Amino acid sequence: AADFCVGDLNGPVGPAGYSCKKTVTVNDFVYSGLAATGNTSNLIKAAVTPAFSAQFPGVNGLGISIARLDLAIGGVIPMHTHPGASEVLVVIQGTICAGFMSSANKVYFKSLNKGDIMVFPQGLLHFQINAGKTQSLAFVSFSSPDPGLQILDFALFANDLPTDIIEETTFLDAAQIKKLKGVLGGTG
Amino acid sequence: AADFCVGDLNGPVGPAGYSCKKTVTVNDFVYSGLAATGNTSNLIKAAVTPAFSAQFPGVNGLGISIARLDLAIGGVIPMHTHPGASEVLVVIQGTICAGFMSSANKVYFKSLNKGDIMVFPQGLLHFQINAGKTQSLAFVSFSSPDPGLQILDFALFANDLPTDIIEETTFLDAAQIKKLKGVLGGTG
Amino acid sequence: AADFCVGDLNGPVGPAGYSCKKTVTVNDFVYSGLAATGNTSNLIKAAVTPAFSAQFPGVNGLGISIARLDLAIGGVIPMHTHPGASEVLVVIQGTICAGFMSSANKVYFKSLNKGDIMVFPQGLLHFQINAGKTQSLAFVSFSSPDPGLQILDFALFANDLPTDIIEETTFLDAAQIKKLKGVLGGTG
Amino acid sequence: AADFCVGDLNGPVGPAGYSCKKTVTVNDFVYSGLAATGNTSNLIKAAVTPAFSAQFPGVNGLGISIARLDLAIGGVIPMHTHPGASEVLVVIQGTICAGFMSSANKVYFKSLNKGDIMVFPQGLLHFQINAGKTQSLAFVSFSSPDPGLQILDFALFANDLPTDIIEETTFLDAAQIKKLKGVLGGTG
Amino acid sequence: AADFCVGDLNGPVGPAGYSCKKTVTVNDFVYSGLAATGNTSNLIKAAVTPAFSAQFPGVNGLGISIARLDLAIGGVIPMHTHPGASEVLVVIQGTICAGFMSSANKVYFKSLNKGDIMVFPQGLLHFQINAGKTQSLAFVSFSSPDPGLQILDFALFANDLPTDIIEETTFLDAAQIKKLKGVLGGTG
Amino acid sequence: AADFCVGDLNGPVGPAGYSCKKTVTVNDFVYSGLAATGNTSNLIKAAVTPAFSAQFPGVNGLGISIARLDLAIGGVIPMHTHPGASEVLVVIQGTICAGFMSSANKVYFKSLNKGDIMVFPQGLLHFQINAGKTQSLAFVSFSSPDPGLQILDFALFANDLPTDIIEETTFLDAAQIKKLKGVLGGTG
Repeated sequence: AADFCVGDLNGPVGPAGYSCKKTVTVNDFVYSGLAATGNTSNLIKAAVTPAFSAQFPGVNGLGISIARLDLAIGGVIPMHTHPGASEVLVVIQGTICAGFMSSANKVYFKSLNKGDIMVFPQGLLHFQINAGKTQSLAFVSFSSPDPGLQILDFALFANDLPTDIIEETTFLDAAQIKKLKGVLGGTG
Repeated sequence: AADFCVGDLNGPVGPAGYSCKKTVTVNDFVYSGLAATGNTSNLIKAAVTPAFSAQFPGVNGLGISIARLDLAIGGVIPMHTHPGASEVLVVIQGTICAGFMSSANKVYFKSLNKGDIMVFPQGLLHFQINAGKTQSLAFVSFSSPDPGLQILDFALFANDLPTDIIEETTFLDAAQIKKLKGVLGGTG
Repeated sequence: AADFCVGDLNGPVGPAGYSCKKTVTVNDFVYSGLAATGNTSNLIKAAVTPAFSAQFPGVNGLGISIARLDLAIGGVIPMHTHPGASEVLVVIQGTICAGFMSSANKVYFKSLNKGDIMVFPQGLLHFQINAGKTQSLAFVSFSSPDPGLQILDFALFANDLPTDIIEETTFLDAAQIKKLKGVLGGTG
Repeated sequence: AADFCVGDLNGPVGPAGYSCKKTVTVNDFVYSGLAATGNTSNLIKAAVTPAFSAQFPGVNGLGISIARLDLAIGGVIPMHTHPGASEVLVVIQGTICAGFMSSANKVYFKSLNKGDIMVFPQGLLHFQINAGKTQSLAFVSFSSPDPGLQILDFALFANDLPTDIIEETTFLDAAQIKKLKGVLGGTG
Repeated sequence: AADFCVGDLNGPVGPAGYSCKKTVTVNDFVYSGLAATGNTSNLIKAAVTPAFSAQFPGVNGLGISIARLDLAIGGVIPMHTHPGASEVLVVIQGTICAGFMSSANKVYFKSLNKGDIMVFPQGLLHFQINAGKTQSLAFVSFSSPDPGLQILDFALFANDLPTDIIEETTFLDAAQIKKLKGVLGGTG
Repeated sequence: AADFCVGDLNGPVGPAGYSCKKTVTVNDFVYSGLAATGNTSNLIKAAVTPAFSAQFPGVNGLGISIARLDLAIGGVIPMHTHPGASEVLVVIQGTICAGFMSSANKVYFKSLNKGDIMVFPQGLLHFQINAGKTQSLAFVSFSSPDPGLQILDFALFANDLPTDIIEETTFLDAAQIKKLKGVLGGTG
């Protein structure tokens, strides 16, 4: 374990990650799962394809991971957080409007072009929007092999958290909540 | 710096916290700012009184801090995250309904009575509601001297993030967004 | 493991804590074991009731834990250290005289009233004494799910460390050592 | 410092990084310095363009950074290590043969195509070679805002380490050492 | 700061250590202060000579430090803890009886000969006694550049902590306390 | 696991180290494997005898380890790195010329006498040469229980990395590479 600890997805998991595989080859350190364009035929016209330790066990224990963002025209990665990592985004193709909000409730957002990078500090709400007239592509790297991903709308509206609790804790109107629960499959 | 590093609020700040004060007394390690009931005469009928390193520099560098929650009847600590810390809550008085949502969009919530404790993992959306018919009091501890606090509604509606960006990234209706911007002082 | 890692007390343990339970419910994140007053009918007229990862596996891997201190009239939490965590104490009821000593052998102690907080830096000797005429109650939080607890008298006098070694390494008189070994059940 | 600590390149530096800038704007979190193709008209027909905390102070304290690799036809990023970070590479264009050696002296190398990713564990010798017939481009991310970069040949041959010490500690022939000192500007 | 951060003892100090010196030479990484035998003409017939970051700023930020232990015949390093580091001891000359107590109040001690090593986990009470008939020498390494050192007797008896508080928190007799305060220069 | 986590070499291993042994004795914390002089009848006239967690499981999880260096007359510890730890060396006997190179390609080297210490920052190339006319002995401590050891020549020439790749990535001549592959058992 001096050098690396490729994750054994079938072994015990602890706070520091997966157990280490006993025998490894170069294929444990290489992953082709980000090579193909993600499927953007969905509500958000966008796709996040992760290479976290669950998909790419080679990064287990190494403090880093990566994901691919595909945004079709009009595509949006909705407001979300990564509870366990900071993120750096690099635009490979297209134009992306990206931003985050701080604990002081300030907004930092900007339109990014090909080759631009932006950093999103750990745990803060942030978003990415295709701001151009073509398909956009970005890669996002994380300061953890398992950064987590909490999408605001799914956290609020895609489960059985009762409408009255959402109402009380977000000040949203009940009708708005029920409408989005309808779209996202939530109940209660 | 072997033992402690009481924060010098006027010195340089780095990623690990404030610079260390050169001379300290016992009063640097004791704080009475949480002794009084917080002012709950506000929109949320609740108050969060922090003893983070900015208020209580004795915790600087020590990996821990604490805050006081006061909830009047009907009081709510709205949906929020701490980007930099996990939290443990202990109910001192009253009944509090508390919960959080995971990255997998599951909801974990429960009604807590006097003496009950609950843990909220780092960076996840969570809330606390006075679920009883009396004033409630809780103390919340954090795994960082500077945990941060991002209140969802303030992050979304109390700044100048344009309504159309909020709409695109949260799926909320423009009317709902403008209504809450009105309440919370946001523009755009 | 992105969000949390509720401890599986029957699985393997590593330097970072317990293995993660595979299935969890809200009850893994809530604990009522600190709700009742600890039994103070003992030598020290005091009780420490921990919610560390061994008692409350929900905090496993999350960098935080909590305990309850009950001090009857005349009660004392004797001189002790937590080898693995800093501590913040909040007085809920009564008056507590608390203090610690630094590596520079300075003493920092003070009488704390209801609502006061005090921080005890990691690994330093510290104590708490009921300084009032009523039962006292405090909660103490730790910057680790498993802070450890080394009570000086138990470490010195409640085991089989030979009296002559204790004498040589503490300068205490043999008679004093044997007296306390007698009280605390030590031999040698 | 709860959320971020944009580096003040003129302030004091500590083990955890630069001091924090007092006032920040979105431009502190965005960087365009990786947008242009690096100059590959050099000995190695390749260019590494870093966005570490010294170039992109927005990542200071956030545990992550990024760099751009350009490899002309025949281009090579010579054998090197990052003493302070693990690395993930993603191929944007072309074909790159990349590899690393472990503490156990095993070699892990493979030809990577567009969209493939590979992880290089912290501190291990590794290399990247343009294995195709076109210009290649990759982005590499690091688990530290300041990963360091020790290029083997520069460390051995581009300074005044005496030839006889290099000979004794690498078993290379003196003639070989002097030849490379000549190319790389070393003396001694 | 990528590689090292030699401490500037005159600059600001933070939780992670000293600020970095701007210009360094090989002499910042080498220290001769442990070469001479410590002065053991004292109460404990022993000497601890540290090379922590305050004495040897080259280790600042690097997670390691070292010290020299000299024990004359009959010499003792009294019961003590390092609040911030684990320790490994290697015997260079003589015979040393060394031990520590765990949080579970178990004692682990053994007589060590030349070349033997022993590890003392962070924050636990431990001691070293010259168990032979010659001068002994050991080197002790620490998992921190600034491990701290709390010697039990000095912490209890070499300051102004009132005798009655010591009595209450250690169960020692007042006469014993006053006797040791007399020896070690304490008051109260 | 509060105090220590002696490694169970037969249990699962994770990124933080070995699983903890369930029952321990003092012999788990003591090791005599460094007491004997290493065998220096070899190519480098030197021996490194490690007490890392694999040899001395008592250090598992404790952030420290140690090794013994024996250098016969003319002995050399060849150019190497420890990918996972900083190192402090103390000379016990003889004279040792030691040095390291920084990311900025500067060389820091010096002749060390008995009792001198030197620190080698994490991940940087370094070496030790017996610079005297007698056998030399040193102990080296590391800021990790499992620091790793990558010896440059073994990494380059003792495996099947193809000669042409080594040539391209190190600028060494093919003849030089093949000569050293011959000495060290490499192929390709």
